[in-house]
Amino acid sequence: LPFEPLFVPPALAAATGDGGWLQAMLDFEAALARAQGLDEPAPPRLDAAEIAAAGRSAANPAAALVEALDEPDAHRGATSQDVMDTAAVLVTKRALPLIEDELAGVAAACAGLAAEHRDTPMAARTLLQQALPTTFGLKAAGWLVAVDEARDLLAGVPLEVELGGAAGTLASLGDEGLGVLARLAAELDLAEPVLPWHTRRVRVGQLGSALALTAGALEKIALDLKLLAQTEVGEVAESSEGGRGGSSTLPHKRNPVGATLTIACAHGVRGAASVLIGALAQEHERAAGAWQAEWGALSRALALTGGAAASLREALEGLSVFPDRMQSNLELTGGLLMTEAVSSALADRLGRAEAKNVVAAAAQRAATGERPLRDELIESVDLSADEIDRALDPANYLGSASAFVDRALKAHEERR
Amino acid sequence: LPFEPLFVPPALAAATGDGGWLQAMLDFEAALARAQGLDEPAPPRLDAAEIAAAGRSAANPAAALVEALDEPDAHRGATSQDVMDTAAVLVTKRALPLIEDELAGVAAACAGLAAEHRDTPMAARTLLQQALPTTFGLKAAGWLVAVDEARDLLAGVPLEVELGGAAGTLASLGDEGLGVLARLAAELDLAEPVLPWHTRRVRVGQLGSALALTAGALEKIALDLKLLAQTEVGEVAESSEGGRGGSSTLPHKRNPVGATLTIACAHGVRGAASVLIGALAQEHERAAGAWQAEWGALSRALALTGGAAASLREALEGLSVFPDRMQSNLELTGGLLMTEAVSSALADRLGRAEAKNVVAAAAQRAATGERPLRDELIESVDLSADEIDRALDPANYLGSASAFVDRALKAHEERR
Amino acid sequence: LPFEPLFVPPALAAATGDGGWLQAMLDFEAALARAQGLDEPAPPRLDAAEIAAAGRSAANPAAALVEALDEPDAHRGATSQDVMDTAAVLVTKRALPLIEDELAGVAAACAGLAAEHRDTPMAARTLLQQALPTTFGLKAAGWLVAVDEARDLLAGVPLEVELGGAAGTLASLGDEGLGVLARLAAELDLAEPVLPWHTRRVRVGQLGSALALTAGALEKIALDLKLLAQTEVGEVAESSEGGRGGSSTLPHKRNPVGATLTIACAHGVRGAASVLIGALAQEHERAAGAWQAEWGALSRALALTGGAAASLREALEGLSVFPDRMQSNLELTGGLLMTEAVSSALADRLGRAEAKNVVAAAAQRAATGERPLRDELIESVDLSADEIDRALDPANYLGSASAFVDRALKAHEERR
Amino acid sequence: LPFEPLFVPPALAAATGDGGWLQAMLDFEAALARAQGLDEPAPPRLDAAEIAAAGRSAANPAAALVEALDEPDAHRGATSQDVMDTAAVLVTKRALPLIEDELAGVAAACAGLAAEHRDTPMAARTLLQQALPTTFGLKAAGWLVAVDEARDLLAGVPLEVELGGAAGTLASLGDEGLGVLARLAAELDLAEPVLPWHTRRVRVGQLGSALALTAGALEKIALDLKLLAQTEVGEVAESSEGGRGGSSTLPHKRNPVGATLTIACAHGVRGAASVLIGALAQEHERAAGAWQAEWGALSRALALTGGAAASLREALEGLSVFPDRMQSNLELTGGLLMTEAVSSALADRLGRAEAKNVVAAAAQRAATGERPLRDELIESVDLSADEIDRALDPANYLGSASAFVDRALKAHEERR
Repeated sequence: LPFEPLFVPPALAAATGDGGWLQAMLDFEAALARAQGLDEPAPPRLDAAEIAAAGRSAANPAAALVEALDEPDAHRGATSQDVMDTAAVLVTKRALPLIEDELAGVAAACAGLAAEHRDTPMAARTLLQQALPTTFGLKAAGWLVAVDEARDLLAGVPLEVELGGAAGTLASLGDEGLGVLARLAAELDLAEPVLPWHTRRVRVGQLGSALALTAGALEKIALDLKLLAQTEVGEVAESSEGGRGGSSTLPHKRNPVGATLTIACAHGVRGAASVLIGALAQEHERAAGAWQAEWGALSRALALTGGAAASLREALEGLSVFPDRMQSNLELTGGLLMTEAVSSALADRLGRAEAKNVVAAAAQRAATGERPLRDELIESVDLSADEIDRALDPANYLGSASAFVDRALKAHEERR
Repeated sequence: LPFEPLFVPPALAAATGDGGWLQAMLDFEAALARAQGLDEPAPPRLDAAEIAAAGRSAANPAAALVEALDEPDAHRGATSQDVMDTAAVLVTKRALPLIEDELAGVAAACAGLAAEHRDTPMAARTLLQQALPTTFGLKAAGWLVAVDEARDLLAGVPLEVELGGAAGTLASLGDEGLGVLARLAAELDLAEPVLPWHTRRVRVGQLGSALALTAGALEKIALDLKLLAQTEVGEVAESSEGGRGGSSTLPHKRNPVGATLTIACAHGVRGAASVLIGALAQEHERAAGAWQAEWGALSRALALTGGAAASLREALEGLSVFPDRMQSNLELTGGLLMTEAVSSALADRLGRAEAKNVVAAAAQRAATGERPLRDELIESVDLSADEIDRALDPANYLGSASAFVDRALKAHEERR
Repeated sequence: LPFEPLFVPPALAAATGDGGWLQAMLDFEAALARAQGLDEPAPPRLDAAEIAAAGRSAANPAAALVEALDEPDAHRGATSQDVMDTAAVLVTKRALPLIEDELAGVAAACAGLAAEHRDTPMAARTLLQQALPTTFGLKAAGWLVAVDEARDLLAGVPLEVELGGAAGTLASLGDEGLGVLARLAAELDLAEPVLPWHTRRVRVGQLGSALALTAGALEKIALDLKLLAQTEVGEVAESSEGGRGGSSTLPHKRNPVGATLTIACAHGVRGAASVLIGALAQEHERAAGAWQAEWGALSRALALTGGAAASLREALEGLSVFPDRMQSNLELTGGLLMTEAVSSALADRLGRAEAKNVVAAAAQRAATGERPLRDELIESVDLSADEIDRALDPANYLGSASAFVDRALKAHEERR
Repeated sequence: LPFEPLFVPPALAAATGDGGWLQAMLDFEAALARAQGLDEPAPPRLDAAEIAAAGRSAANPAAALVEALDEPDAHRGATSQDVMDTAAVLVTKRALPLIEDELAGVAAACAGLAAEHRDTPMAARTLLQQALPTTFGLKAAGWLVAVDEARDLLAGVPLEVELGGAAGTLASLGDEGLGVLARLAAELDLAEPVLPWHTRRVRVGQLGSALALTAGALEKIALDLKLLAQTEVGEVAESSEGGRGGSSTLPHKRNPVGATLTIACAHGVRGAASVLIGALAQEHERAAGAWQAEWGALSRALALTGGAAASLREALEGLSVFPDRMQSNLELTGGLLMTEAVSSALADRLGRAEAKNVVAAAAQRAATGERPLRDELIESVDLSADEIDRALDPANYLGSASAFVDRALKAHEERR
């Protein structure tokens, strides 16, 4: 990944890079030794590039690493795939909390915005056209629920140790196989699978999916942010502290850079996840190709999901929200946005169908003529000016918006 | 989908086709009326093609359907997306049991094979090369666990009703919004969401993922089947009843047609699921494009996952298994497959490292020379002919294979 | 595809549906007979669903169709895959002109807009923030070039006949193989491949790619349209004739329904194309699964690409463009958009660096203070009010925009 | 990408990594200066990680690099995207010859195998079942044509310079815009676009597609190799020189490691290409997210395509081919493979239909009974033993196989 620090937080880059993988492989070897009551191999001095290059003759780097150990016997019972699969799970286990930390920050920021703007009216937009009013709080509450749904998906992926030996039978461990497997799982604090999963990759695909869906949930928020930050909309802006999002030649710009990086990362996660989801068909007891494709895809999916979350968190934590602009945008259509509310107010008197027709006619005249909707309504409908003004006020036609916000905040609170 | 009956069972094709969608939309309208204490609209006579064509002016078919109702008032509170999203969930709710039924059949067939062949030795193959012995039971047990994992993923997707109105606030329902939402969910036996999910599509993506992973789990089994059915391997064959898999010009062929259709379906599911997973970034309160892309993708993902399962079930239920061929294939390398077992047997006497060297040297001579491994071993290693024969017998080097089969069957049993 | 007429023009739906496929298969059989100097089989009465269902025992529908012919001998030399592959190419050959017709319409509409609005200033937007001025003509010219690039990609996909027999050797045709192959290609007006391409699927993937890229080029235009049509931007609107894009409850809406359908179709094309691009790895002389996955994906990719083009063409042909709104949007930032232009004007006098600093300072004051940029500039920079007004006029800072439009129109003209 | 040297040749890793990108960015800046008759900036000492980290505030690394230049004025006229896009094209221009070199090696190896084994009979396999005989030469010729098709696709992607300035109008260059653009293209030996392509990404997607299709063509070959190398098939083996593909514990293994790495790389290329193909919908004049997603995907697609080619080249150049095993595999079905040939031989005497019936009956008896097909035929058909033996010899039923090989070799020869 060129320009990795542009996209991925350093700690996550380290956890999912060569170093993270080698450490995880060594941790497997050490734990396997302990699980068999053997001496742990001394951690060798390893060069990732050398290990990787040497691995070309085996199509995986595990054998080269095992050869570098001083106690190859500790590796007993394990095959290369046991090393790599368990390492992949350990890399995941170490990367996920870094991702979750960013996601928790995103969720907290969404919750904060939802609470603060619980009752801040803004235009709801369907097909990018203003529809009825909603609140910024409800929008942020929707983001919050999505992020929490994604976090649950990530938390629900089982992280299972892998140990099966060359054929998945643990034959070289004789009668001790199941015992060693259980102890190894305990040593590494990983779940114990029913069977070795050398070519049963549902969990790998599930992880890839959960990461793609998480990134997609974040991308939705970023999409809303960049749309709201448009010059012509101007309802939010990312922080411009330290020149962020600015342009030396275009001083008025306040680019949504956090949202942009989030979206870029989400594209990358989808690509990487498609590799994981598309690699379930693995031959017999070890695949020739589909398995080896996972390592890079897994690292990239983890790193970029975390990158998406970190950039979005920055965007949300530094977000400026402009309720005045939300209000003035609500007025852009001169009240046309509120015709449903007027019809509702009139329905008691005229019946729904007739009320709708009358109001629609007034709206039509207002939309094409010179006179504002309010005047057209005063003239043509059987409501007082006060009633009309009340009906035209977006703040009075928010339905269950605030109640929904409360539900979302409560669900978020209970989740912890 | 041209030639749909080639791939998709008729009931599932119906459930996910125009008819299934229209019925679901009508069911939504009827339930919404009931939830508001209104009269249900009489089911209109609908032409799916007309509804769809009329829908072009709104970019969705819901408005055209609502217009065809005799009680449009019953639609009160709902927006087009409420109709379509709830219909999508109902289509899913009706398709999933059809899929699950086929998956249960697949799992049962796998369980049957695992039990029957718990101790049937066969060659494990890694990178498509014979490695150590395993059992056909363990292979089938691995299939079983994967299918059950996939079934759990499918069962874990929440099916939530959608009702939010044009802005997701339920404004036109005044104070009754939350009540109607709850009653609608109850009427349709769907879960109630925390908030309307018009542009929070994590669940849609989760469903797409679960279907793709299910199809992938099935594809792995189909891949193993077609590899085992190769002319040169010949360890299994699909049923040839009624000319199935035969060829008029090539009478010896017994094509793995069920496995083939399964794999073809799995490709299609992945493509459809990628649409669902790739459509989470939906703008504001209703998306212009990403949402409308879901309907076709959802139908196809459901239909083809069921198709994959049905074809694989046929393949497995009619599967011929040839243990003799498994045995003769195990002997193809003249015992070289068993060198690890011989080393193990010798390790007590010589130590692991020395044992391995001695046996490797014998294996090397056997592999390149004229004399079979058994003879080389008798000459060069400190084991009796009996001990050597025992070590060379695959049935004696199966490690925890049978125990693993038992674990898998037990987990499957407890799952019900 | 549920609600197909919502997305796909009827002629294209027919060409890529069951009927189109069966006709293409029959055309292959008839042409093969002619190529061998045999009697053509009489066209049988076929039921697509029956053919497809019967095909389950062979995992393809060709054998069932051949059996329905009265002259099965005419099929001599051909294998099922020859029928299906050539049919796929014929379906493509018949669908592409329907798609190309829509694309030509899209291109013509873009060219018309580019010519008409060659010099209509509007804000260029980068990261969705107003940057410098551009013209609507240049934007449309960019669309035009993209569509023509896509048309070239589609036109560049070779359409090759398939004839190889069961093993790809044409063995059953003895010495006549190459002759029959050449005559068959001529009969069907298809290219003759160097070799049968039963498992050489580069061309299939190339077609899938070209369709995905075409759909992507269309989606970019649709994306711009829906963004320009936003209530807060209002620079274009799709036709509202006949209630198109309107909403009974929201009378002010003018939904970008054509753009929306285009984007929805593009998502679907990508999903289908991913199946074609992902199915190149086909085993030996005929694949078990990857090949059979192509038919549905091909039909869908063709149908939805045409659907995307047809919907976009409607959107563009009925597009209302609002130059006044473009102008007023250009003024939203009070001239801040033009600071680069002012710096340029001042550079001759102060040097580029100093000019930039002075103007940036004035812009900063204007952005944060009360006074408009023009006043700040008059006070602080060494330019006359006239010079400042000239520099602040977007129409004077369009660089090569018009020249680029001319280049694009010329290239389009020469392409025909 | 963890363990990059396992998959990617060092030169290609360098060309597509941080260093390659930074060099390309600097080359753009220098060429832009020359194109404007300005002094080139002195190449600064750059730290890729610092540049990338600094780029977070702009969502791209170009601004940080330009700031590090001693002559920022040389950057005049260009926007960040001009730097990045042209750099992406230069990275591609430098990576493609490295890939092409490997592809040429693959093609040469295929051509060599096709020529050497032009007449070596082997079983054609359809749906992984032996069908009729073919030749290994024809199989290799098919590989050759596919690789050459892919090479043509790669060579056909236009490599265009990018220069448009902030709005794509080249406004800051005044009247010199088109001149500078042309000179810049010439300086860098890149094509000149009709218009800047800031958000017209058809070419980027085309490159991604071409790489995915190339990788897919290579994967097909690798798939055939690993299937042919199966223990039970044994018709080819990759080189075992230096322990390649061996296993210390499984001495008989000769793992197809080159094919395995090729397939793994192809999975990764598909994932990366899907990002490029899926990012065409870029907003207005510069995208917020879709554009920034390209860099990593492009690098990975280039690197892994080259990796796939390099590994496959190694596999093919060191390939052992075993014609004896091909012959003995042809005999596995006891002649059933040849029934079509016998029918053909008999057709002159009995007519095609009757001949087919008679032979099919004999084949059926042979398949289910004790007597070999030859004996059944001698007894039941009106052909001499000699004629039967001739018909049963695979070498006599190869149709146009050799002629096809010659056509492929000629086409390959003429291509150079």
